[in-house]
Amino acid sequence: MNGAESLVHTLADSGVEICFGNPGTSEMHFVAALDHEPKMRGVLCLFEGVVAGAADGYARMTGKPAATLLHLGPGFGNAISFLHNARKGHQPIVNIVGDHAISHSKYPQAPLSSDIMAICGSVSDWLHQCKSASEVAGDGARVVQAARAAPGKIATLVLPADTAWNQAVAPAPPLPVAAPGKVDSAVIDRIAAALKNGKRTALLLWGSCLQSAGVDAAGRIAQQSGARLLHDYFTPRLTRGEGLSEVERIPYFAEDIVEFLKGLEQIVLVGAAPPVTFFAYPDKPSWVTPEGCELLTLAEPDEDMTGALQALADALGAKQPGRIVTRVMPDMPQHGGLDAENIGAIMARLMPDNVILCDDSITCGRGLQKSLRYGPRHDWLVLTGGAIGDAAPMAVGAALTAPDRKVIAISGDGSAMYSLQALWTMARERLDVVTIVCANRAYNILNIEMARVGARNLGPKTLAMLDLHDPELDFVKLAQGMGVEASRAETTTEFAAQFADAMQRRGPRLIEAVI
Amino acid sequence: MNGAESLVHTLADSGVEICFGNPGTSEMHFVAALDHEPKMRGVLCLFEGVVAGAADGYARMTGKPAATLLHLGPGFGNAISFLHNARKGHQPIVNIVGDHAISHSKYPQAPLSSDIMAICGSVSDWLHQCKSASEVAGDGARVVQAARAAPGKIATLVLPADTAWNQAVAPAPPLPVAAPGKVDSAVIDRIAAALKNGKRTALLLWGSCLQSAGVDAAGRIAQQSGARLLHDYFTPRLTRGEGLSEVERIPYFAEDIVEFLKGLEQIVLVGAAPPVTFFAYPDKPSWVTPEGCELLTLAEPDEDMTGALQALADALGAKQPGRIVTRVMPDMPQHGGLDAENIGAIMARLMPDNVILCDDSITCGRGLQKSLRYGPRHDWLVLTGGAIGDAAPMAVGAALTAPDRKVIAISGDGSAMYSLQALWTMARERLDVVTIVCANRAYNILNIEMARVGARNLGPKTLAMLDLHDPELDFVKLAQGMGVEASRAETTTEFAAQFADAMQRRGPRLIEAVI
Repeated sequence: MNGAESLVHTLADSGVEICFGNPGTSEMHFVAALDHEPKMRGVLCLFEGVVAGAADGYARMTGKPAATLLHLGPGFGNAISFLHNARKGHQPIVNIVGDHAISHSKYPQAPLSSDIMAICGSVSDWLHQCKSASEVAGDGARVVQAARAAPGKIATLVLPADTAWNQAVAPAPPLPVAAPGKVDSAVIDRIAAALKNGKRTALLLWGSCLQSAGVDAAGRIAQQSGARLLHDYFTPRLTRGEGLSEVERIPYFAEDIVEFLKGLEQIVLVGAAPPVTFFAYPDKPSWVTPEGCELLTLAEPDEDMTGALQALADALGAKQPGRIVTRVMPDMPQHGGLDAENIGAIMARLMPDNVILCDDSITCGRGLQKSLRYGPRHDWLVLTGGAIGDAAPMAVGAALTAPDRKVIAISGDGSAMYSLQALWTMARERLDVVTIVCANRAYNILNIEMARVGARNLGPKTLAMLDLHDPELDFVKLAQGMGVEASRAETTTEFAAQFADAMQRRGPRLIEAVI
Repeated sequence: MNGAESLVHTLADSGVEICFGNPGTSEMHFVAALDHEPKMRGVLCLFEGVVAGAADGYARMTGKPAATLLHLGPGFGNAISFLHNARKGHQPIVNIVGDHAISHSKYPQAPLSSDIMAICGSVSDWLHQCKSASEVAGDGARVVQAARAAPGKIATLVLPADTAWNQAVAPAPPLPVAAPGKVDSAVIDRIAAALKNGKRTALLLWGSCLQSAGVDAAGRIAQQSGARLLHDYFTPRLTRGEGLSEVERIPYFAEDIVEFLKGLEQIVLVGAAPPVTFFAYPDKPSWVTPEGCELLTLAEPDEDMTGALQALADALGAKQPGRIVTRVMPDMPQHGGLDAENIGAIMARLMPDNVILCDDSITCGRGLQKSLRYGPRHDWLVLTGGAIGDAAPMAVGAALTAPDRKVIAISGDGSAMYSLQALWTMARERLDVVTIVCANRAYNILNIEMARVGARNLGPKTLAMLDLHDPELDFVKLAQGMGVEASRAETTTEFAAQFADAMQRRGPRLIEAVI
């Protein structure tokens, strides 16, 4: 058994069941080892951003780390932006990064030599470089342990090629993973008391407590105490829609957030940080907690947030279930042009239960949500770190976790172009993913932001940097070029027909929705 | 004048004439400032890898830095792999990276907050974060100075949004850039003496001395002394073909290099590092300088390498021009299937003079070169850092430097998929670039490397990770989807007709050459 085989067996024994890879020469022994480990699946992606985004989507749906397989420093570099998103979303990922053999690393003139520890360290919570083949298995157990530390970490193991090809002894047994910390009963009691003090209160939820058990407990608390339930604009996964308590989304823009939070006297943080704006703007606040509003913490992100909510509900004697969302069946929009609101309405009408919705829809997003939040129950996975383009890669990873669930990836045209290679993996793996590209032929968010940041007297060079009209991207051809069936919808009628068809059939599909 | 305006004017006054950008909100003031600076052009790219690769291509053709405009830490992350290539090729690039306003940076919970200095520092030779709007102009002059330090550096300026939007005073004047160091005459004399000592000698050339003046001087030296002229397999720019002295390419694989260098008793390094293999392999050497062969240094990369070659030629009394390449017009290949050799032959027959050839053709490359090196004179820009996919992005930058020259980007199908978004910028800017994708439906280099690294007993999971057949990429549709005219050639006759047509017309064009 060589080092790579000892590593693949160790990862699999430690519960890593899938490897998203874009390998090169230095990873060949790892790739060869996949065939000797039936517990691990290998999924090829054509770009490292897809690898990282897929691992993020997989983690959001399972709570478990996938492995990524990346090719030296530059390969890791291509994964950084979506690893950043995963890290911001507190998702576990195990990165395996091949590097030059230790014997080769003394030659900086080798083209692929790099400061690999600096590149990998820039976005990793845990980082280690294997020193010898005999230590690789132990390192493999440790990287999984590090990734699974609550609430989820980016853990990176740099694997020099000779530590992969030299002889090793045996796989290493899994290392224990600490359960998320239990919130102290004194904290529960303190928050319970605060919820009875008559102040206008909101619970701000983040992370795994936004899945159904946490949302149910939060709903009971809200029902009993009158507290509002909030989630950040960008949240890794929210289970919502029919049959679940509604958690309100904090708006995107500073002035909207201020209005939204106005009057709150206390905010209880459940795995969440105090709300701040996405960007700073001249003469606008970044800190948006109302003046005088107290911030209380029920649970930190590495604690059992759902358990804390359940304990809090019990402490309040909140026996009644929360008010739940009744599905609103929006009217079918009149025949006419498409916009975000009528796309959302059509989706909310026609979506089956239990969709996984990967959302990177930027300016379209707000319009879409008006109907979707009262639609059928679904898991909603949103861009968490601001590195756009991850809807389709996340959908790859999410779809592999749940072959019986329909996955929808929705993005803008600008954002879709960062990681379009995900479509090829959808075709290769026959994933049941419908990708919707809302094509407004612009980086439209920047047209909005340009005014908001106070930039004035915009000339043609400036406006050209925000515009995608010349030439217009043809997402139908782009999708077909990667083996994905595709169609274009320019009217509500066309979109409804195409979306209905996509919901009824299985397999990868793209709809370019021209808005 | 705000900080961004002071920066744009300063960059332009310092000789930065073009900005390749993929901006976001934090870069809006910089973008707005472009309209007030007629000396700077803005070019929009749809992915940061294209931004970095274009800046690399621009630098290789001009010796000058372009600016890149990147969006916070994740945006820089997406540029790392091609910045790595540029750095390995010693190219100057000025990166302007927007970041959160300083006032916002105390909120780690903001989605786009990151360890931006770590991300940028991992591949930058020079790095600074602006502290206030009034200092931005001075920082701008310094970042250009740093980038232009010989032989060319990756210089990165992090621009917090408030330092861009707050009031500044004025642009800063350009700072002096030291000319490359002059090689001491004692060194010239020592090498001249070595070239007369009767030992079997090669000159190994790197960097700017591989353009015509340096190659001409090297040719005189070779003619006079009998020394061989060599260049590394991956070199940033070589002017070659008809009318120039031939510089031999060191092979890719270790055993081929050993054979190629066999018998050499001294190697004179001209800006080059001693040759090593690209990767290490079990039981093969990384260090390939023959045993007992002496390594002498004529010039370091930051010295005037071309001047040193000219001085050496003069010191040798080398008045005769070197032996120059006479163009070999290969026979038109018989009608039949395409392979790398007959693609190269057709190109060498039909290429006009003065093509800029951006080459990321991986396994096809060796076959192509058999004819191309004896073809019409051209500049050949090769992947320098091993991060594949940069042919098309480099072609974007190169084409913008020379609107009267035909640019050809040639890549494999695997490599083309890393940065296909470059095609859109070619269409938008009406660049005269012909992109050739040699589609072998595989990561073919890995099929070769798998055996060479000693991986055995390959099973179906392993082989699938190297294969691009399922589904087959359709580069004609992919190009058309980005507004680039495209065609597919499956035979020599088809390829010859399409390539001839592409050479005669202007504007972006893609040919998928199925091999």
